[in-house]
Order: sequence, then structure tokens, then C-alpha cells
Amino acid sequence: MPRYALKIEYHGAPFVGWQRQTDLPSVQGAVETALAKLEPRGHTIAAAGRTDAGVHALGQVAHCDMKQDWDAFRLSEALNYHLKPQPVAITACAAVPDDFHARFSACERRYLFRILSRRAPATHQDGLVWQIKHELDLEAMNEAVSFLQGKHDFTTFRSTICQADSPVKTLDHLSVARVETLGGPEYHFDVRARSFLHNQVRSFVGTLERVGTGSWSPQDVQSALEARDRSACGPVCPPQGLYLAHVTYPQDPFA
Amino acid sequence: MPRYALKIEYHGAPFVGWQRQTDLPSVQGAVETALAKLEPRGHTIAAAGRTDAGVHALGQVAHCDMKQDWDAFRLSEALNYHLKPQPVAITACAAVPDDFHARFSACERRYLFRILSRRAPATHQDGLVWQIKHELDLEAMNEAVSFLQGKHDFTTFRSTICQADSPVKTLDHLSVARVETLGGPEYHFDVRARSFLHNQVRSFVGTLERVGTGSWSPQDVQSALEARDRSACGPVCPPQGLYLAHVTYPQDPFA
Repeated sequence: MPRYALKIEYHGAPFVGWQRQTDLPSVQGAVETALAKLEPRGHTIAAAGRTDAGVHALGQVAHCDMKQDWDAFRLSEALNYHLKPQPVAITACAAVPDDFHARFSACERRYLFRILSRRAPATHQDGLVWQIKHELDLEAMNEAVSFLQGKHDFTTFRSTICQADSPVKTLDHLSVARVETLGGPEYHFDVRARSFLHNQVRSFVGTLERVGTGSWSPQDVQSALEARDRSACGPVCPPQGLYLAHVTYPQDPFA
Repeated sequence: MPRYALKIEYHGAPFVGWQRQTDLPSVQGAVETALAKLEPRGHTIAAAGRTDAGVHALGQVAHCDMKQDWDAFRLSEALNYHLKPQPVAITACAAVPDDFHARFSACERRYLFRILSRRAPATHQDGLVWQIKHELDLEAMNEAVSFLQGKHDFTTFRSTICQADSPVKTLDHLSVARVETLGGPEYHFDVRARSFLHNQVRSFVGTLERVGTGSWSPQDVQSALEARDRSACGPVCPPQGLYLAHVTYPQDPFA
């Protein structure tokens, strides 16, 4: 059966998350239902990242196995036709070898987190950012991230329901930038690792926001990490600012 | 009665436009209803630009007359409280002299128009851009705008229901820039004039898009302008990419 990699963008608000759940709207379910319009049968697709309820994607990657040989561009167009009006879009599609696996072949996941800083309620980007009312100290946050980069036991920044075998992960990159947007100043967190613990990015951002306000010092983040204790974490921030931005493979399937 | 200037941001989708209409949701009606929560009586506010259905604002300006003396910041916070959950926000508020008039004192209006260029349906910015499937020729569009700048009879770019006394207006500025965004490449049209004819910006953008695709030459825009004939205009583009971005006054009331 020919296998295809799908690059998927979605708005997380209407979904219980990526993963299919009986009788509840999921992104996986939406894409599988669209696939069944093209080849009527049960479809099960695998994705690089199982995003939580309310989390968005700019570059989720999944793969599907088809009976027919599809032209990749026509497959993406047909899926987009059947996905409408749901806020899910196939932005790229490519035939891949049988041993390509969207989840297991991935060598890096990249997340973006957007914080919008302003007092008045957001009107255009509501649901697409975490809005806070104050400005943040960018320098202090970027000092704090230096303690998190690299290989660590991230028990502090891991949800208690996380199913990963080990709390030890290598954080390849974490930085914060201030970006002027039409709606006001935003702080963009760029986070990259081979894989993440459950709620790790939202635990990082919620904690770093405390540093940005001055409630925590950068060294408090180091102490929290070293405590290896979930209760040492700052508040976990809400999901609506989080985007699965990109998934890297040894060979880019969409190149 | 103390007078206040309000800077207003809104998402145009749920509204029939700025102007109040009986039994239909308007932005003016939303703000007046919020004012009536603070001072229970009929309120009538005037705005710099009467935006059409579906058109957004980043910096609409209106003024209101109050019986009480309000602290400007507290007034904006109270209005935002009562405007929720509607996508309308007061982003600035200031006490102004009695002779300040949001509409008649304005010396320049600035509009932004966003075109998103990509094939896959927009998931995050749906309703906030005009989406087209092709790239546009930026150089050709910026050549065409040179014919539109300055003082002209803009009959070609004026809706047949326009109520302005004269079709002669001075276009202070019109330029197009290509901007990379999270959702893909966008073309941003920056348009400024003391005042505009009805549908003038959407007539410009719809016509310039034809130049961007190569269907029209830049000189065709010059011929269309010189025809002074509505039927010479290109297609009027949809409202959802249009934003009233800024209103300028001889003295900035929010400075």
C-alpha cells in the first residue's frame, strides 16, 4: 500500500485534541473521516505529536496508507475539500517509503508558544494566544532558559499523568523573543527537542512567565529543575497559545 | 458634559458594520449598550469611519459625552467589562475638549488590507484575510499604485451607492508589502487619505490584485482611473481582509 506523509495545520479550539475519542471531535478523527470519503473503509493514522485539547498546529505530520496510487497534490486537495468547514488543512503531502513513520521517524519536534501582552481583551487573536496584562522581562526569561537547555531530569516540568518511560530528556533549544504584532507586543517561545514529556512546554512557559513578571528569579528556575519535584513547577499555562510548529525527519519528506 | 475619545478595536464578522441598525448587531450599538450600563440613558456616539459589514478595526476612534467625570482608564476598563464576550475592545481612552469630534476633526484615515496567498484553506486567520491561491507580482502592483496616488477623480473606484458630494479625493499614500506570517506569505496594502469614497479601498485592492496576477498591466489601472467610469473598475474584493488601522488628528488625543 502506498504511504503518504501529510503536513497538517489546525486550530485547536473545536477539538478534544489530536487523538481520536469516541463521539468527540478530534483532529485525527477529522482527517480519518476525510480519508474515508476517498477510500471508504476504516483508516488509522499516526502523528508526530499528540497535541492536547485547544493546542494548535502549524506543521503537524501524520502518515496514511492508501489502496490507490494517489498523486500527492491531488490527495491533499481532495482531503482539504472534505475537511471543510473544519479548521484543519493539509498544507503539504508527499509519497514516502514504507518504513517512514510520522511518529517514530521524527528526530525533532518544534513548538511555538505565543503570549500576547496587553490590557484590553484580544479581538482578532482571541483563542490563538495566551493573553496576559503586563509586559515581561525578556532578559530575565532568556537567562532562566539557559538552566533548562540540554539533558536533564525534567520531573518538575512533567504532568503527573505523563506516560513517558523516563523523565530524562534533552532540550535542544529554548529561547524567547519579543515580536510586535497588529494586536500588540507578543512573546514567542521557540522550543525544540527530539521528544517532550506531557505538558512540558506549557510547564516551561508558565514558569518562565513568573520569571518575566519578576515573581521568580532566573535562579529559582534552576532550583525548581534540580528539585525534580512536580510541586516545584510554576503554574502550567493555558493551551491556546501553543502550536506544534514543525517536525524534523532525517530526510524531509516534503522537500 | 465631559467628552471622551475612545480607540476601538473589533472583529467585523459578527456585525452588520459600524453603524447602528435596529435589531441588528452593530459595533456602534455594542459600544452604546456598554455606555448605557455605566450611565443608563440613550447614547449616540460618532466614529471616524463607518466601516461596512465584515470589516475590522485596529484603531477606530469614536467620542462619547458622559454626565459623570470619569477617569479615562477606568472608563475603558468598565466598557471592556461590559463589551465582553463580543469581539470589541477599547484599547485607549482620553478626555478631550468639547470641540473634538471623532469624525470631523480627523485629518487622516489609514487602512490596512491583508491578502493571504496559499492553496490550503486558512485555519487560524480565516475571516481575518482575503485568501487567494496564487502569489502576486509585488513590483507590478507597486508600479500601478503610482497612478493612484495624489488628487484624482476616483469615480471608477467608488461604489454606486457612495454618498460623498464629490468623487475627487487626495490619496496620500498607497503601497504594497510582502510579509511572511505563520500562515504563509501575505500582501499588506497600506492606504492613507483624509477621507475615502465608499468601497474605495476594496475597489483599489481588487483591481491591484488583477495587476498582481498579470491579468492587468499597471497601465490598465491608469486607464481605468482616467475612464472615470465605475464599470472600468476591477472586481471589488471581499471585506474580511480590511482593517481601519489608524485615525490621525491635528493633536493625538491618546498621546
